[in-house]
Amino acid sequence: MRLRNRFITVEGVEGAGKTSAVASIVNWIETQQGGQVVATREPGGTSLGEDLRAILLSHREEGMSSDAELLLMFAARAEHLERVIRPALAAGQWVVCDRFTDASFAYQGGGRGLDKDRIDALAQWTHPDLAPGLTLWLDVPVAVGLARAAGRSTPDRFESEKQTFFDAVRNTYEQRQILEPHRMKRIDAGAPINAVQSQITDALTEAYQNG
Amino acid sequence: MRLRNRFITVEGVEGAGKTSAVASIVNWIETQQGGQVVATREPGGTSLGEDLRAILLSHREEGMSSDAELLLMFAARAEHLERVIRPALAAGQWVVCDRFTDASFAYQGGGRGLDKDRIDALAQWTHPDLAPGLTLWLDVPVAVGLARAAGRSTPDRFESEKQTFFDAVRNTYEQRQILEPHRMKRIDAGAPINAVQSQITDALTEAYQNG
Repeated sequence: MRLRNRFITVEGVEGAGKTSAVASIVNWIETQQGGQVVATREPGGTSLGEDLRAILLSHREEGMSSDAELLLMFAARAEHLERVIRPALAAGQWVVCDRFTDASFAYQGGGRGLDKDRIDALAQWTHPDLAPGLTLWLDVPVAVGLARAAGRSTPDRFESEKQTFFDAVRNTYEQRQILEPHRMKRIDAGAPINAVQSQITDALTEAYQNG
Repeated sequence: MRLRNRFITVEGVEGAGKTSAVASIVNWIETQQGGQVVATREPGGTSLGEDLRAILLSHREEGMSSDAELLLMFAARAEHLERVIRPALAAGQWVVCDRFTDASFAYQGGGRGLDKDRIDALAQWTHPDLAPGLTLWLDVPVAVGLARAAGRSTPDRFESEKQTFFDAVRNTYEQRQILEPHRMKRIDAGAPINAVQSQITDALTEAYQNG
């Protein structure tokens, strides 16, 4: 079987624990694999990407068309791929990214209702040759995640959406996990923190040491 | 023959006289056709679009990947179409736009070297059902245009490009005009101002009164 690439992504709704998961993954790579790791996020990860993140997350009186929102996500992603992700992978490093293209399907597809084929067309346009080797989907009940996120800071433009929006986001992640069970692993992120960490470690071990 | 739509775009390199041309077109419509006119520009024309314009035109130490630049242009365009262009056309108004998708082919295709088919894929993604009814390409020798533009303000990120970049931009406009002579009319914008205006008026008359 072909080796998995070293591009690992972490997905999930607000408050699912993605930041802790990224830290656990980085720690596992450093201690178990010994390679160099780039931890990054989307939208963001570059100077341009962080500027676009600020535009995407800030509240706008007139809103933003869903097509524009999706194109902005892919603009940030194109820059991120060229400046950060591809060079790191080419140098043999690991890349751990907080959200990637699965999030575009979940948020702009499930949440905003954009057609899956149109999102796939942009994914093929932007990175026809690259997909994550492993994606950990942190699945937490939407209400739990939102409650956690609400305790952190003023809700951004996405966090201000309604529960039905996040239900659709969560369900889209689930559909993708069912379609691609080899690449995408579900982590029960509603479990106690130690149990979440051991699920993450198990998924990494299975994918990169046994897989 | 099918009536042309009321969406008119103006194209050309820096310093070609697009601003004056837009004013002439608006004046012609108001006096000869009597309709309501929305004059707008790209990138820009909306709150989001103007924010993206600032990002696109400002100098960035690390530059910007060509894919990201193109996706940003289309993000601004998607917002512009949804908020301004489509509603105005649907209401029977005229729309006169300083630059549209021809500029993406000229600047990101000719100038940056992106593949024409990839640009066309984004154009089809963003506005499969809409193209300008008439495009006036203001053709001016590149050196003349750049000298005019240099007298106006500090060069932005595009204006700072080299002559070879603008030669490729100009040549791409020419190729597009040759391929679509019915939609796209060449205006000799190096001529004296009165001669330019009468060429513009003639093109409008031919397209909308005789055409």
